[in-house]
Amino acid sequence: MPKISNKGLKMPESPIRKLVPFAENAKKKGNHVYHLNIGQPDIKTPQIALNAVQKSELEVLAYARSEGSEIYRKKLVDYYKSKNIMVTANDIVVTTGGSEALFFTIGSITDFGDELIIPEPFYANYNGFSIANGVIIKPVVSTIEKGFSLPNIDVFENQITTKTKAIIICNPGNPTGYLYTKEEIKKLATLVLKHDIFLIADEVYREFVYDGLKHHSVMSETGLENHAILIDSVSKRYSMCGARIGCVVSKNKDLIATVLKYAQARLSPPTFSLIASEAALDTPQSYFDAVIEEYVSRRNILITELQKIANIKISKPKGAFYLIVALPIKDADHFAQWILENFQDNDETVMFAPASGFYSTKNAGKNQIRIAYVLKKEDLIRAVTILKLALLAYKS
Amino acid sequence: MPKISNKGLKMPESPIRKLVPFAENAKKKGNHVYHLNIGQPDIKTPQIALNAVQKSELEVLAYARSEGSEIYRKKLVDYYKSKNIMVTANDIVVTTGGSEALFFTIGSITDFGDELIIPEPFYANYNGFSIANGVIIKPVVSTIEKGFSLPNIDVFENQITTKTKAIIICNPGNPTGYLYTKEEIKKLATLVLKHDIFLIADEVYREFVYDGLKHHSVMSETGLENHAILIDSVSKRYSMCGARIGCVVSKNKDLIATVLKYAQARLSPPTFSLIASEAALDTPQSYFDAVIEEYVSRRNILITELQKIANIKISKPKGAFYLIVALPIKDADHFAQWILENFQDNDETVMFAPASGFYSTKNAGKNQIRIAYVLKKEDLIRAVTILKLALLAYKS
Repeated sequence: MPKISNKGLKMPESPIRKLVPFAENAKKKGNHVYHLNIGQPDIKTPQIALNAVQKSELEVLAYARSEGSEIYRKKLVDYYKSKNIMVTANDIVVTTGGSEALFFTIGSITDFGDELIIPEPFYANYNGFSIANGVIIKPVVSTIEKGFSLPNIDVFENQITTKTKAIIICNPGNPTGYLYTKEEIKKLATLVLKHDIFLIADEVYREFVYDGLKHHSVMSETGLENHAILIDSVSKRYSMCGARIGCVVSKNKDLIATVLKYAQARLSPPTFSLIASEAALDTPQSYFDAVIEEYVSRRNILITELQKIANIKISKPKGAFYLIVALPIKDADHFAQWILENFQDNDETVMFAPASGFYSTKNAGKNQIRIAYVLKKEDLIRAVTILKLALLAYKS
Repeated sequence: MPKISNKGLKMPESPIRKLVPFAENAKKKGNHVYHLNIGQPDIKTPQIALNAVQKSELEVLAYARSEGSEIYRKKLVDYYKSKNIMVTANDIVVTTGGSEALFFTIGSITDFGDELIIPEPFYANYNGFSIANGVIIKPVVSTIEKGFSLPNIDVFENQITTKTKAIIICNPGNPTGYLYTKEEIKKLATLVLKHDIFLIADEVYREFVYDGLKHHSVMSETGLENHAILIDSVSKRYSMCGARIGCVVSKNKDLIATVLKYAQARLSPPTFSLIASEAALDTPQSYFDAVIEEYVSRRNILITELQKIANIKISKPKGAFYLIVALPIKDADHFAQWILENFQDNDETVMFAPASGFYSTKNAGKNQIRIAYVLKKEDLIRAVTILKLALLAYKS
């Protein structure tokens, strides 16, 4: 039998995936499952984007340019300008989702055995992209007690070795909903300049910032031109996760030239999705205003409901649409599976993501779960009620 | 300035890409450029596939399943059955193009420093996928004199080391148009079984087989269940290169489980493209009959025209839509650029792919070019006439 590679064996399963068969079983038994586990919003995709595809009159579904069409990249330049990010079309390579943007970026700056520093908990797939590139993640722990704010900068500096190629942040953060302050971004900027490494910011939730706060992009930091790399995606912004269109943005010409070689090797991003993404850039501000209002009111209701549960800890998210809760239990992986297998209330049960999959430090976050508030309010209220009842039953 | 990775520096530029600025300049000067350089067919995409997307009534462009929907994979099972490839839906992971299928497969079976054996000349992007995985390609030379048939099997065996993880073939071949015989496939099967390595077959041109010959898939070899991996794509089959939908197919459960972990890390193939690909499976045979008739007649005319040029060598392709020609010159890279810069006839010129980019052995194929016969017949005739005139001018 020919062998699977070591890195293939190390590739992690999705932290949610393990629970899927249990959710399917629960449904087979006739239960409705509230899905708090996934970042697939129920928000409608802007009609302007869907219409553009439906009205496309292609005769040949041909390759797009490897880096995305010049028209699309120029429209992106205007979009970024409106976000105080000043770039040109040549600073952008369009990718197949933020996933590919991350993959190409990590490949472009790391060799086998190199290291990346990432504040923990972090988006689980950073693990997969790192392992696939033979790269080691050095986590820097942020805690729910401190609202997942950045640890002292010397904690980062202590992790830097000759193998360190970049610090990666997700801002606003999945799975924490944390929004980095301008001061935090500046501290990271100073550190990466001192050690001459990259600062990669996954800013795919840029639009989802609440309570009158402001998003600070690494791309807006002067002096960081050669060190800042922006990872972006249309998935969450326009609720079009299935488009698989993202981009890498950087003023570092060597980086962009290398990412472009990766992009050429895979030929092209998907053409229909590019048509949708280009049209989506004309989405009116009123769309975002309504979406953000919806998320804020969901977040507030979710927190109100969660606070009815005894002995939990919450970190109020300032952005994105995730929230981490520490539950009064020992093992959230076990609890999540137990609910799906054993608990229902009026033929309804709930699925969430155990937070352990978002930590790389062993046993960190074992009592935490991630809730994605991508369901409508009455469903969120009901789902938290089921969670509360399940906790009581689980403990007895 | 932070550094680009060694593998990033090694990533090759597309062999055609270098010529693009020269083609653009030629156009600026008012010349029409015949593009014999790219594998983007002018054949129309089946209307049934385009209609399915135009009529889709999605409200949310949501993620698809990481491995592709069960419905699509089951329809693929029926398609493969019609090609004498017996698999189940669980043997298939849907990918974002054949590119991603290759990337996930190489990642799943190789670690840093491992080796792959590939008959040369080969599809240039095998280089990129290998370098991005830290893998070394050991070429096995096939020659235009022998019509690019498989060299003796001991030439392969001599290249096998403890680091060798697989042999990769492209069948029918890009850039040669060569179709492996059943005997050649059987010899490779015996060899990979003896050394317990994988046999990866890129069969994206399966439909394009001419002169009454038959395609033999590695998936139809009994005894090879754990060793055969099929790379596939809808790009050429349905002239929908811009869909970016492909798949990995294998009866080896460990391989499929590992490819699935890669697929989960990047979340989902593009949703609109899946809709098109699922509908495309209902394309009637008459579509393929007409397309194959067109390619055969293009190939025949191309060869007739090329044979009017003195001192060239041609290997008549049995499949795909590429042809390699050895020209009576020393350096086809220089010649290709020279034509675009200096030669026009009645304001028309021609672009083709120098074959050197398809070889990894230094200086191999320096006098060869690849012609993609993806243009209509009168354009092919005119393009070859320009090539002939350019050769005369170049030599004098």
